[in-house]
Amino acid sequence: MVLDKVKEECGVFGFYDNDGFDVARMTYYGLYALQHRGQESCGIAVNDDGVITVHKGIGLVNEVFDSENIQELKGKMAVGHVLYSTSKFQREDCQPLVSRYIKGSLTIALNGNLTNAHELRAKLEQEGAIFQSSSNAEVIMHLAARARTKTHSIEEAMLKVLPQLEGAFSLIIMSPRKLIAIRDPKGFRPLCLGKIKNSYIIASETAALDVIRAEFLRDIEAGEMVIINQEGLNSIKYASEQPSHCVFEYIYFARPDSVIDGVSVYQARVQTGKLLAKAHPVEADIVVGVPDSGLSFAVGYAQESGIPYGEGLIKNRYTGRTFIKPTQDEREMSVSIKLNVLKNNIKGKRVILIDDSIVRGTTCANLIKLFRNAGATEIHMRVASPPFLWPCYFGTDIPSRKELIAVKYTLEEIRQKIGADSLGYLPLEDIKNIGLKQDQGYCDACFSGKYSIKKLPKNVPTPSKTQEEIIYDNRRRIIKDFKIIKAYS
Amino acid sequence: MVLDKVKEECGVFGFYDNDGFDVARMTYYGLYALQHRGQESCGIAVNDDGVITVHKGIGLVNEVFDSENIQELKGKMAVGHVLYSTSKFQREDCQPLVSRYIKGSLTIALNGNLTNAHELRAKLEQEGAIFQSSSNAEVIMHLAARARTKTHSIEEAMLKVLPQLEGAFSLIIMSPRKLIAIRDPKGFRPLCLGKIKNSYIIASETAALDVIRAEFLRDIEAGEMVIINQEGLNSIKYASEQPSHCVFEYIYFARPDSVIDGVSVYQARVQTGKLLAKAHPVEADIVVGVPDSGLSFAVGYAQESGIPYGEGLIKNRYTGRTFIKPTQDEREMSVSIKLNVLKNNIKGKRVILIDDSIVRGTTCANLIKLFRNAGATEIHMRVASPPFLWPCYFGTDIPSRKELIAVKYTLEEIRQKIGADSLGYLPLEDIKNIGLKQDQGYCDACFSGKYSIKKLPKNVPTPSKTQEEIIYDNRRRIIKDFKIIKAYS
Amino acid sequence: MVLDKVKEECGVFGFYDNDGFDVARMTYYGLYALQHRGQESCGIAVNDDGVITVHKGIGLVNEVFDSENIQELKGKMAVGHVLYSTSKFQREDCQPLVSRYIKGSLTIALNGNLTNAHELRAKLEQEGAIFQSSSNAEVIMHLAARARTKTHSIEEAMLKVLPQLEGAFSLIIMSPRKLIAIRDPKGFRPLCLGKIKNSYIIASETAALDVIRAEFLRDIEAGEMVIINQEGLNSIKYASEQPSHCVFEYIYFARPDSVIDGVSVYQARVQTGKLLAKAHPVEADIVVGVPDSGLSFAVGYAQESGIPYGEGLIKNRYTGRTFIKPTQDEREMSVSIKLNVLKNNIKGKRVILIDDSIVRGTTCANLIKLFRNAGATEIHMRVASPPFLWPCYFGTDIPSRKELIAVKYTLEEIRQKIGADSLGYLPLEDIKNIGLKQDQGYCDACFSGKYSIKKLPKNVPTPSKTQEEIIYDNRRRIIKDFKIIKAYS
Amino acid sequence: MVLDKVKEECGVFGFYDNDGFDVARMTYYGLYALQHRGQESCGIAVNDDGVITVHKGIGLVNEVFDSENIQELKGKMAVGHVLYSTSKFQREDCQPLVSRYIKGSLTIALNGNLTNAHELRAKLEQEGAIFQSSSNAEVIMHLAARARTKTHSIEEAMLKVLPQLEGAFSLIIMSPRKLIAIRDPKGFRPLCLGKIKNSYIIASETAALDVIRAEFLRDIEAGEMVIINQEGLNSIKYASEQPSHCVFEYIYFARPDSVIDGVSVYQARVQTGKLLAKAHPVEADIVVGVPDSGLSFAVGYAQESGIPYGEGLIKNRYTGRTFIKPTQDEREMSVSIKLNVLKNNIKGKRVILIDDSIVRGTTCANLIKLFRNAGATEIHMRVASPPFLWPCYFGTDIPSRKELIAVKYTLEEIRQKIGADSLGYLPLEDIKNIGLKQDQGYCDACFSGKYSIKKLPKNVPTPSKTQEEIIYDNRRRIIKDFKIIKAYS
Repeated sequence: MVLDKVKEECGVFGFYDNDGFDVARMTYYGLYALQHRGQESCGIAVNDDGVITVHKGIGLVNEVFDSENIQELKGKMAVGHVLYSTSKFQREDCQPLVSRYIKGSLTIALNGNLTNAHELRAKLEQEGAIFQSSSNAEVIMHLAARARTKTHSIEEAMLKVLPQLEGAFSLIIMSPRKLIAIRDPKGFRPLCLGKIKNSYIIASETAALDVIRAEFLRDIEAGEMVIINQEGLNSIKYASEQPSHCVFEYIYFARPDSVIDGVSVYQARVQTGKLLAKAHPVEADIVVGVPDSGLSFAVGYAQESGIPYGEGLIKNRYTGRTFIKPTQDEREMSVSIKLNVLKNNIKGKRVILIDDSIVRGTTCANLIKLFRNAGATEIHMRVASPPFLWPCYFGTDIPSRKELIAVKYTLEEIRQKIGADSLGYLPLEDIKNIGLKQDQGYCDACFSGKYSIKKLPKNVPTPSKTQEEIIYDNRRRIIKDFKIIKAYS
Repeated sequence: MVLDKVKEECGVFGFYDNDGFDVARMTYYGLYALQHRGQESCGIAVNDDGVITVHKGIGLVNEVFDSENIQELKGKMAVGHVLYSTSKFQREDCQPLVSRYIKGSLTIALNGNLTNAHELRAKLEQEGAIFQSSSNAEVIMHLAARARTKTHSIEEAMLKVLPQLEGAFSLIIMSPRKLIAIRDPKGFRPLCLGKIKNSYIIASETAALDVIRAEFLRDIEAGEMVIINQEGLNSIKYASEQPSHCVFEYIYFARPDSVIDGVSVYQARVQTGKLLAKAHPVEADIVVGVPDSGLSFAVGYAQESGIPYGEGLIKNRYTGRTFIKPTQDEREMSVSIKLNVLKNNIKGKRVILIDDSIVRGTTCANLIKLFRNAGATEIHMRVASPPFLWPCYFGTDIPSRKELIAVKYTLEEIRQKIGADSLGYLPLEDIKNIGLKQDQGYCDACFSGKYSIKKLPKNVPTPSKTQEEIIYDNRRRIIKDFKIIKAYS
Repeated sequence: MVLDKVKEECGVFGFYDNDGFDVARMTYYGLYALQHRGQESCGIAVNDDGVITVHKGIGLVNEVFDSENIQELKGKMAVGHVLYSTSKFQREDCQPLVSRYIKGSLTIALNGNLTNAHELRAKLEQEGAIFQSSSNAEVIMHLAARARTKTHSIEEAMLKVLPQLEGAFSLIIMSPRKLIAIRDPKGFRPLCLGKIKNSYIIASETAALDVIRAEFLRDIEAGEMVIINQEGLNSIKYASEQPSHCVFEYIYFARPDSVIDGVSVYQARVQTGKLLAKAHPVEADIVVGVPDSGLSFAVGYAQESGIPYGEGLIKNRYTGRTFIKPTQDEREMSVSIKLNVLKNNIKGKRVILIDDSIVRGTTCANLIKLFRNAGATEIHMRVASPPFLWPCYFGTDIPSRKELIAVKYTLEEIRQKIGADSLGYLPLEDIKNIGLKQDQGYCDACFSGKYSIKKLPKNVPTPSKTQEEIIYDNRRRIIKDFKIIKAYS
Repeated sequence: MVLDKVKEECGVFGFYDNDGFDVARMTYYGLYALQHRGQESCGIAVNDDGVITVHKGIGLVNEVFDSENIQELKGKMAVGHVLYSTSKFQREDCQPLVSRYIKGSLTIALNGNLTNAHELRAKLEQEGAIFQSSSNAEVIMHLAARARTKTHSIEEAMLKVLPQLEGAFSLIIMSPRKLIAIRDPKGFRPLCLGKIKNSYIIASETAALDVIRAEFLRDIEAGEMVIINQEGLNSIKYASEQPSHCVFEYIYFARPDSVIDGVSVYQARVQTGKLLAKAHPVEADIVVGVPDSGLSFAVGYAQESGIPYGEGLIKNRYTGRTFIKPTQDEREMSVSIKLNVLKNNIKGKRVILIDDSIVRGTTCANLIKLFRNAGATEIHMRVASPPFLWPCYFGTDIPSRKELIAVKYTLEEIRQKIGADSLGYLPLEDIKNIGLKQDQGYCDACFSGKYSIKKLPKNVPTPSKTQEEIIYDNRRRIIKDFKIIKAYS
């Protein structure tokens, strides 16, 4: 029940059927395509004329669902959710969250993080509310139920609720007769709309539409609510702010085959690779990406630099979850289990190695060691994002600052720690050049420290005073380090 | 989510430690002893200085708990629950129910049924409450949380809540610092208090105290709230009504080794057997009880009649839950799988067969057939309770009236249907003679139709109009039949 | 792979269909009725025109089989097995054992223990045989396959094999076209024949016939082979020796509702209770049996002594396998979890407590302590068998001699250890009077040390030299103790 | 028990410890790296001073093993196995196969297929052998046990057994004191030798050595037996024939990061891509490989042709086994679940699409449809192997000829069926140019019909006469078609 530590990165999917589709199966395939957004738990709720049936569980989509339980999920609408969670996770936190309230059933699936969840919960508790999970979705559920007692429709109720919510939220809400998609005023997390025959789909990413062969209609806009019911689509623009889309969706989270807010993730990555080649050129024989996310950057770097793109790391296709904890001796092995260097292709060569980001630096160090053992003569590390320096309050789980390598060390120290011959991060100012839309705004606060909302969470509990002090000390040191890094890049 | 059909018969257990006991293990053993009160699901919640950890699951106590999960349940207090449920059961209905509210955590375990749950839920929903389960415990949780916003303590809050609750409830409530036992003003369902060293136990039945070698202190009284905290025991008598203890606890539900409200279940059963022998004497060679519940009645019948007690039915010790559905041909077999007639002891004999009750009459008919096949020359059926004729609204799951054999047929018709040579029920007026306390009141409404509370549930949904009509027709017919039965007995 | 320690007590069941029965389901129900003979693993093999399908697993019958896997077992014949095993058990030891050999498929299910298994294995290995399990069934399988290369039929082959087998074996063999039942020349373990419509059944006990409503035809005789095929039944009496049926089947192993070799187990137990009353009379107020096995003895003791039979111990109906290991403190509790004293029926009374046997004495001591706590004024322990003193080589798992209380202590010492006011075992000479057939022979070697076969196993490995020495010392001491015991009884 | 249909492609791993390694964990990691060679079942057997402990199960390596069971596997030697099986698979077929025989324990793990298994089994059965599985490993086990009765050592016994074995076999044998690696005289399937510190490893592929950071020593030669024991390594060359290594290991089976018989799999694939570009040049805008196997060919094709290599298909990282069977409507979807076209990179382009092979053609047709929908203007299919036309008897599971698209249709018909604008297979004569060693021989019989062993299996049962006839008719037709194909390529 440790409320404030829950930071989730999730995926949502909704289906409103007008053609006789099996909505649970469609949602199952949609969640399958969104599995990369959350591997801790998943669930599907279906709505059969106001009667909700839900199946949720801990595990991957293909672990939680089977032919038997999917068959019991019949209805005209469905909402699905995949969840990633960092705190000690309770079964009650699984989504979609389903409850009964004044107007029958209400189902919510949320991707995001409310920055004022703590205050909202405290206020609700003072009014006598009870909470059975630590999820933000339950906070929204309570607010919606209370608002609904004084309004004529669920969308009216939500219009009263939305001004109270701060932070990032891409929401799917299912009432007895309506399927509703809502995106926060800044549009931090993605959400899009699709169509197949006469039926409508809401999904975190376009790749989930492709899987079920649906057509992409458009993105849900920041500050927009889309209501789907018997009459069709209806849109309400409830807020008009400068958007602040998460740039890390392009760099790491999203699937390369998705198109988010008008920008192809794949093309943004290739472009990032090109920018990296311009910012940190080096003489070498081969450009190697770390699978899977690093491959597209490598393609871009190779195109820009003229240095041949090559396969250098083979990923074991079968590395699913394992129930064997590596011993201390085997820690290093845990990288080689997943990734093996293609020795014959690397031996004697100067390698440019590209990964999406460096967090703690341990995996990176191990990989470089593998390349050295394979006979690489030089290894030039290139990172397709600026250094992680600041916390994210918008649904991304970044380790505490005291664990971030870029917070603790200078660029040169990091290079030495990971054992690279040279190291180059994507320059912070290049983020705007990776192909993003000029008429949109983006959030790069985890790199820049510039947050697009004013009121950041206070009272965020920290494990202990001592840790807080360490972080504080580091914070002061970072300002200096950070300048050095910027100067370099 | 079919709210109004849920009728539960459950068991509860609470432990407040002052000696360093492993509260979860103690609760595990307690639930083991109460397993007969609910086999659908079970759960244990522990309270470690206000932090609640709960483990719940579908299945028997020894299926849901293992060394690993029981070890994670550490604390100073524990609440346990076993549940039996008739409706399509949701995981969310598992108890203890745990939630966070204004004053931290609140845990509830309930045995009973609120007759005004429907109205309370409707009212709460109008105020914006959301419900995630269909259990009455969640209704009480909401009321407690709301009351707590305006009171100084959880017991004060409960004193505001209790007058709103109607029906049967034996409750255990765990607040951050207190363990509270509450029994409804009529004391329908049992609840008792025990002690081991300096630690306190609350349990549905005394057998759960015996198992952990605890001492029985006393029953919680009807209309009493007992608060256990650091200072010790504290009792509040919040209501003073004539009690209305469920008689069917003595006849069937409770373990024979329990003592409930001052009456030994075993001795009540032996006494019932004696009364049955007086009311329905017959010449015979052997008195046989249907295991397990029927054996004590047979002992009493044999003592009174002088006809030898004998073993006539052997119960398979290993008939746990099976995952093989019997085919139509095997229906009859499903009795012989559980109970086998001791042919050599029965052949050529006139048998008096005693069971606790007859509901639909199918098992009874099958058993009598087994005895005929084994060579019994006469079979005289004796039933240790009056005929079931009326619904129970107090936590017992009796099938709908249209399924009850005594509602549909006359005594002679029943005798013919089950194939007995004679049939005798316990006379309704004998219930007061089975050894019950003269200063207490008892509920026998399921036999007599005389309910001890005025406001019975209305709006209890029925599956269909047609069924309602059938029941109505039967109800009129019953009045006649019932008289005949009474005349006979 | 610890060959020589495996000592099994098992149950077997076979079904030959001529009527269109579902043979797997019939076998499932039969095994259910035989579950008390083995709880470690179980299996069913069906024969569909020579093609064998088998499903085996570790666990109880209702754990291993479900609707899905039972449905895949289609055929005209079936063989089932339940197994109890004391050594570290391998999955490969599960029976029925199925293999392919010269004449197609061969399936074997065995209840018993070959005293020359070690020698037979050694000889077969010298001829190049490979063993994949440590079960005796595999030894028989090898011998049958070798014999079959030189014979015209499976029964001819078995007639060559049988003279090589020594010890106890009740066997079911299934060849492509035949179902064969074999009982060893001494008939140690039971085996009987049944019929339903035109179909035949082989089973360890008659209770398995009752469950499926089949008719009991007769016992398979000691030294008999019964062959069932398209033409019907055929019997070969391959050996004519004085039988040596296990008496402990009557005292403990078998179900009371079974009739074994012409003797009702229930009636033998009642008679044993009477003999015990004659041999060890005592003044008392109530005769209490330890459930489940002790109840019939108590009935007999009460009838003979005139002291009332009473229920004194209530068994928890739900004590299945648990995955929580009791801590040291909870050891005593482990008895009270299963059995609770009916205080109100015991308080202030002099109790005669009857159990089937005393092995190590620990459970017995705990039970007596429970009665003392419940207020019994005297406790007189009566044991329905003579003291265990010698090893069993015929399929029963008796702990090593150094653990047997009767081997280590005198009668008076045992009485003190268990805390009884008096102690009386069934006199050894009374075994012949419990109702056994005069024209049959019986094995009571575990009590008397008189073995009915000459060649006992040598080279039986013992865990360590030291243990062997202890046993040897005890052995010398026993001779003395034993005399005292005999003198007393 | 359908003997003759079992065709397996497996992976084997052995570890002989001289340094105190945890042999089971090492084997676990090794099998993890070999998982692509078999996903049906896996197992590890360890040898602790002659005592074998084995854990086997159905499922992937990380499903079958966990911290608990791996910890119980202690010893100085270990043998592991991953298995792929096409027939209805029995648990008994899991390897390693462990048995007890004349000289203690014997453990066998086999990758391959004996072409005379049927005859060997028949002969053994005539001598009285029993078979509990349908695996070829059990045949070898029997032969070894019989030979061992007349020889002084396990290697002598194997030297007697080996001349009887025909077909493909890469074997690991573990006797109480030795770990033995054997490769058939033709060396069909790979097998190599590694070292870490002073400990030795045997593995199907070098990638399994890399994972545990072991050093590659050399390949086991065709016709070689390597014995590892306390004294170290010992080699016996028991046969000297022209090798016949499987070429499809290079094209599809093996991991790209493995080096087999001196040839880098990755480099062979890049070279194959180049040959394909020469043989079937076409004007296009982008070269796309089908992940994962097709990517390396695409790299080669791009290098040779000068047409840019591009990512065009994104593979879902989480497509493990699913328990939901696709409906008829969803068949097409089953491709899009796994692979999604990168629309923005494909739209308006002429695509060269490269896959390793075409078997039935269904997946290929679906993929091409996906590209058309994504806006590709032309799609030129290139296949990195010649057409499959003949059965493989050496451990590869190729569908029956009547299912092979190349058997049934002409090249032009295939092109139309899959919907490509042009289609080009790797010319058969180019196989020798993909970088294979000149001093070695290779088997390409599945493409060429030229088998390197004279005696092919007869009596291979076929499902029905009718099917055989169809195949025969097709065979005649193929000869013609095949010529056309050759002419074209």
